[in-house]
Amino acid sequence: MAFMTVEQAQEMLEPGGHFPSWVAELGLRIEAISAQGLRARLPRAPHIQRAGGVVLGQALMAMADTMLVFTFAEALGRLPSMATISLTTNFMRAAVDCDVIGQARALKLGRSTVFGEVTFFTDADPAPIAQSTAAFAVLPDGNAKFTRVGAKGA
Amino acid sequence: MAFMTVEQAQEMLEPGGHFPSWVAELGLRIEAISAQGLRARLPRAPHIQRAGGVVLGQALMAMADTMLVFTFAEALGRLPSMATISLTTNFMRAAVDCDVIGQARALKLGRSTVFGEVTFFTDADPAPIAQSTAAFAVLPDGNAKFTRVGAKGA
Amino acid sequence: MAFMTVEQAQEMLEPGGHFPSWVAELGLRIEAISAQGLRARLPRAPHIQRAGGVVLGQALMAMADTMLVFTFAEALGRLPSMATISLTTNFMRAAVDCDVIGQARALKLGRSTVFGEVTFFTDADPAPIAQSTAAFAVLPDGNAKFTRVGAKGA
Amino acid sequence: MAFMTVEQAQEMLEPGGHFPSWVAELGLRIEAISAQGLRARLPRAPHIQRAGGVVLGQALMAMADTMLVFTFAEALGRLPSMATISLTTNFMRAAVDCDVIGQARALKLGRSTVFGEVTFFTDADPAPIAQSTAAFAVLPDGNAKFTRVGAKGA
Repeated sequence: MAFMTVEQAQEMLEPGGHFPSWVAELGLRIEAISAQGLRARLPRAPHIQRAGGVVLGQALMAMADTMLVFTFAEALGRLPSMATISLTTNFMRAAVDCDVIGQARALKLGRSTVFGEVTFFTDADPAPIAQSTAAFAVLPDGNAKFTRVGAKGA
Repeated sequence: MAFMTVEQAQEMLEPGGHFPSWVAELGLRIEAISAQGLRARLPRAPHIQRAGGVVLGQALMAMADTMLVFTFAEALGRLPSMATISLTTNFMRAAVDCDVIGQARALKLGRSTVFGEVTFFTDADPAPIAQSTAAFAVLPDGNAKFTRVGAKGA
Repeated sequence: MAFMTVEQAQEMLEPGGHFPSWVAELGLRIEAISAQGLRARLPRAPHIQRAGGVVLGQALMAMADTMLVFTFAEALGRLPSMATISLTTNFMRAAVDCDVIGQARALKLGRSTVFGEVTFFTDADPAPIAQSTAAFAVLPDGNAKFTRVGAKGA
Repeated sequence: MAFMTVEQAQEMLEPGGHFPSWVAELGLRIEAISAQGLRARLPRAPHIQRAGGVVLGQALMAMADTMLVFTFAEALGRLPSMATISLTTNFMRAAVDCDVIGQARALKLGRSTVFGEVTFFTDADPAPIAQSTAAFAVLPDGNAKFTRVGAKGA
């Protein structure tokens, strides 16, 4: 029994859902979700392409971080508060004026730290255009251990 | 003699400027630019905050990549075509419902590869909330060596 | 037709071979090599274990970098001068007093930049204990473009 | 009042000290230690140089990880069990047949996760030759939460 359906995950990505509007504007489409991983599509669109139609690396990094939230939630069977500890992206090829597909999977589910990766490619070619690897902290309820700064956190 | 003024850099970030609209929506404000580095501000805004007001890690990664384009251009004295090779971000503290300031600097300017870092903090505290380090490729004119996939690149 | 045999690769790892003696002391055993990738084994040994028998993360990082040299050489069909641009390792589990196996593969072979990854696991469990991702520069003959500092490079 | 003196830190690096012999063979010299950071020297030596005298990237990564153990211990005022979560190194210049100096500092000391960086340079030039950034887990006494695999951990 899955934790989330594709429809439930998609709903979290819509405006007014789980993510703020700047993430919703990526227009991500969840294509598959299971304990084995998540596949999502970043549709081609001018607002995320730089001169010449190259899909923004910034959009891929945001997509990676967003996809991993779902990936860990599905693998854990719950949606805890999480915080990215470290995320590295290697950019290998430029995707030009086309959709980008991301395939994410959890690599390790620890009690307080989880690890995952996202591989990006296009419909035209299975060769990866980019790869993200990340460690996330799974926060205890109430986030008591997470350092905050700023207006509410000082 | 600087390559870019703060005003010129800011203009590149406005809608219709050098960056596509999804990056422009971050609302980045360039505060200082010199060969020694770039300081920019990500103003507090709900569209880049998740529940509880935490500023999105995705926004910081996009800010890092964007700031480094200016940083390398200013240090090189020209704006070549560049492509991010690798970008790593470590997230140390949550910034809550506040501006985030980034301080970027170039660490190495090679003929074909350049390196830089961005440190993020808030007005409330000089301690870093996040740090990005990156390698960028400086592309030869015409981008002949850069692999592209997709509609125009297949 | 392969570029290197397992025996040739192994010979490069022996004292007096391609790598300096500190790398040779890891005692790496090449188990398989092809254009699809490289498998190598780090034998259990006290000199690379810290208290409690935990295999050193330092040894895994050195193993990753070393394995990728072979991996790129085999995929390229030649052994060019290479220089690591960036290498990230995520450590997921501790390997305790046991061999560690690394599986490396090339993800992108560009003219001047190549990308690869190494996944580490143990005989006891196929789940990854660590993962390295890296970008390497492929240097033109003569290394003319590579910045050097120090005794000979000043 | 400092937690460790230079002499105490140096003793931990000697054969039979805190680190296994493969790390001791780097011959690291601690030059300064304080809550503000750690400076250490990797002496020039053939066993860590590849053809042409280039100091091994593998040695710098091992040095970074090792230095951060001291750096976090000094900043925390105790030597807890720690485990590297993620370590990224960007290699900017080749150090040729010379000492390499590392300057490490803690960037964030959380209850369960700490962050730091190490910048590498040579006596000839203050410009960085490499930079490592890392996140470490600070383990509770007994390491109960740390996943182990292998002979003792299965």
